[in-house]
Amino acid sequence: MNKPFFLSLLILYCFVSNSQESTHNKQIKTIYDLALTQGNAYEWLDHLTNQIGGRLSGSLNAKRAVKWGQDELSEINLDRVYLQDLMVPKWVRGTFEYASIITGPGRSMNVPVCSLGGSISTPSAGLQAKVVEVKNFEELDSLGKKNIKGKFVFYNRAMPENLINTFDAYSKSVDQRSQGAAKAARLGAVGVIVRSMNLRLDDFPHTGAMNYGDLPNKLRIPAAAISTNGAQLLSSMLSLNDDLDFYLKQDCRNFPDVPSHNVVGEIKGSEFPDEIIVVGGHLDSWDLGDGAHDDGAGIVQSMEVLRLLKKMNYKPKRTIRVVLYMNEENGLRGGTAYAKYAKNNNETHIFALESDAGGFTPRGFVFEATKKQFNTITSWKPYFEPYMIDRFKLGGSGADIGPLKNGITVLSGLRPDSQRYFDYHHAANDTFDAINKRELELGAAAMTSLVYLVDQYGF
Amino acid sequence: MNKPFFLSLLILYCFVSNSQESTHNKQIKTIYDLALTQGNAYEWLDHLTNQIGGRLSGSLNAKRAVKWGQDELSEINLDRVYLQDLMVPKWVRGTFEYASIITGPGRSMNVPVCSLGGSISTPSAGLQAKVVEVKNFEELDSLGKKNIKGKFVFYNRAMPENLINTFDAYSKSVDQRSQGAAKAARLGAVGVIVRSMNLRLDDFPHTGAMNYGDLPNKLRIPAAAISTNGAQLLSSMLSLNDDLDFYLKQDCRNFPDVPSHNVVGEIKGSEFPDEIIVVGGHLDSWDLGDGAHDDGAGIVQSMEVLRLLKKMNYKPKRTIRVVLYMNEENGLRGGTAYAKYAKNNNETHIFALESDAGGFTPRGFVFEATKKQFNTITSWKPYFEPYMIDRFKLGGSGADIGPLKNGITVLSGLRPDSQRYFDYHHAANDTFDAINKRELELGAAAMTSLVYLVDQYGF
Repeated sequence: MNKPFFLSLLILYCFVSNSQESTHNKQIKTIYDLALTQGNAYEWLDHLTNQIGGRLSGSLNAKRAVKWGQDELSEINLDRVYLQDLMVPKWVRGTFEYASIITGPGRSMNVPVCSLGGSISTPSAGLQAKVVEVKNFEELDSLGKKNIKGKFVFYNRAMPENLINTFDAYSKSVDQRSQGAAKAARLGAVGVIVRSMNLRLDDFPHTGAMNYGDLPNKLRIPAAAISTNGAQLLSSMLSLNDDLDFYLKQDCRNFPDVPSHNVVGEIKGSEFPDEIIVVGGHLDSWDLGDGAHDDGAGIVQSMEVLRLLKKMNYKPKRTIRVVLYMNEENGLRGGTAYAKYAKNNNETHIFALESDAGGFTPRGFVFEATKKQFNTITSWKPYFEPYMIDRFKLGGSGADIGPLKNGITVLSGLRPDSQRYFDYHHAANDTFDAINKRELELGAAAMTSLVYLVDQYGF
Repeated sequence: MNKPFFLSLLILYCFVSNSQESTHNKQIKTIYDLALTQGNAYEWLDHLTNQIGGRLSGSLNAKRAVKWGQDELSEINLDRVYLQDLMVPKWVRGTFEYASIITGPGRSMNVPVCSLGGSISTPSAGLQAKVVEVKNFEELDSLGKKNIKGKFVFYNRAMPENLINTFDAYSKSVDQRSQGAAKAARLGAVGVIVRSMNLRLDDFPHTGAMNYGDLPNKLRIPAAAISTNGAQLLSSMLSLNDDLDFYLKQDCRNFPDVPSHNVVGEIKGSEFPDEIIVVGGHLDSWDLGDGAHDDGAGIVQSMEVLRLLKKMNYKPKRTIRVVLYMNEENGLRGGTAYAKYAKNNNETHIFALESDAGGFTPRGFVFEATKKQFNTITSWKPYFEPYMIDRFKLGGSGADIGPLKNGITVLSGLRPDSQRYFDYHHAANDTFDAINKRELELGAAAMTSLVYLVDQYGF
């Protein structure tokens, strides 16, 4: 190559590269401006939480949420909106859940409890028994059958307060909720009471999934969560009198699976329609609150990604799809079904993004990616820096997109600030008023910006 | 230098440097663990907001807050706790503030308003007049005396929603509140109504300082803030009928200055007692809410810095001082007096840190520093990275420490996430329940860590 020609090429390259950068910066600025001044995520969430409300898989509200999602996506002129059929578990809380600490003959104190998702009911007259408090499964095992048989096991290990990311604190505690009943049942316990997964001391019991594993039906025992204040109280009362009785009554039930749906909407790619970029959250929620942070926020942010791209008249090169997954909370049937449909249809997913960590100020993204893919992503950080979302890390992305993992598809999760998440998670206070409009919108804008860059460059 | 000797020195250097790094990491981990598991900031704030409440300069509550600050600092065994005397303005809201849009004979709609700090009252029967809506001073000026005389001026420029840092949005809007009355009065207006500095649409009017500059007493006119919903309503009504009347009645008053105090506490340095590191926030607040975010949070975080250092048995090399500044909101007399005392006593301040941007998740610090000083600070970023507070920028630090600026002292401000700040700022909802315990504690821990490093290295 002669020098002048090489130089011209170099200048051309610099020019193209600079002008590309400047285009991307402009597009991302447009995304943020639209999200913050003409956003629709907050209004959608208002409807989903306040007009529909909690939407546990298999419930009437879950059905209404599917209809709503399909209708709203149809309103924004996507190229295609459709449902994917699947079967989901159906667990129903029932009409009462009630507990008290019996401190003496005729004396008792009520404590706030809620049934754990998947739990069986107590006998209709309730269950009364002594209580053994433990912090973990080792302590449970060392107490053994002779100390456990016929009693309630009270799991009271608090989430560790000194971990900065509250999801780490959750991971270190949630085994009590998910496996506690099965472990205690094998030692003859009559029921379990689990300290709520909440870093605050308050009166809200937090539900969530539990399962009995391969425990035979006749050995299964009821499981309930107790509020953190209730747990503190029960623990103090036990330290004064470890012979006290606890009373629990709940009438939740498991029913056979019922049909449900993922909701899917997409904009067809203009250059590489067969390369799919998918963004989503889960449409189901627990039944106590309105599923505002978990995961109404993720749902409306994901819908907003496609709405913003349409609004700015962007014609994607690749196919951009939003999926409202059903049944993340107690079965993951939606995520599993979606990956199966994708495989059966020979679809190529290059990127899957999930928002399922609350509608708080976004701090960054996590990625499941090869080193090369992650390097590409890291090179985009300067685009995000002005928006204060620049913590890009490798790590687990999201439950619903997990089944897409194949070593080629890049998986990613939005990571908002986590400090307040477990104040609301799976509890009656996960409602619309716990959402800040701007924080929600910044998340939607960050997701849209990332999807835009993936669409521009691919992997 | 011979080679083996040089190598030994190098190894020694690496060893010392690694061991220092590891000591710092351990100390900072201890700071965070203590702040998050045995913190006292939240409990302090509970008292300051719920037992004392709003504490405007010159009020009885401000006096109670001074006493409380002095007592609490005395409890944590500092080497010295004392008060600095100063005079502060005294403005009193009075017993009523009331406004309505008069839509026709006998027809009116109440709108939520509050007097702006420093405003005069209306006549005791109230003020009724036509309204001219403007967005800015240019529009006001171009309307001129003939259109303004005898009317209310309604400043209705919303905070721009598309700026990521909400303090930038505040800067772009607050001139309406601070100078609006003086400008309108010169054109013959009878009063001003200012849209609240709030990014949300809600019913809380937000107060804040205004001043008449050199406007003669007889020309001064009353100024009130209207809630954002109220502003939207008034604007719509005006677009239907620009001849409607507005009615405002308020009985706030300015009194002569009264004595007050800064509260100061310190731990004497062991090696360089004459090098002072000062940390603080402002003890006064507006009177509508309880001053939880503004600036109860900064007060208790600053107190917590010294408490944590004592708690971990740290013996500082330099003198570490906490100052609870009086009268940031409407006069800055505390900050001004503090700098004057420092000068009169020939004190050398190497570092001044302020927390006055809310008790939200800390994102970083801003610094007023020389390039060399900022390089030193930037080299500490790795210590903060695990705690997700690593946005270090050059920029304006804090109002109370501003008077210390001399080109040598490094000034710094804690920068928490700003999205929710103006939801509460100067309004009746700036109360304890708007504070998340962990977010508050993370701020205190970040400040303590920074103070620790400054104490270790100096500048």
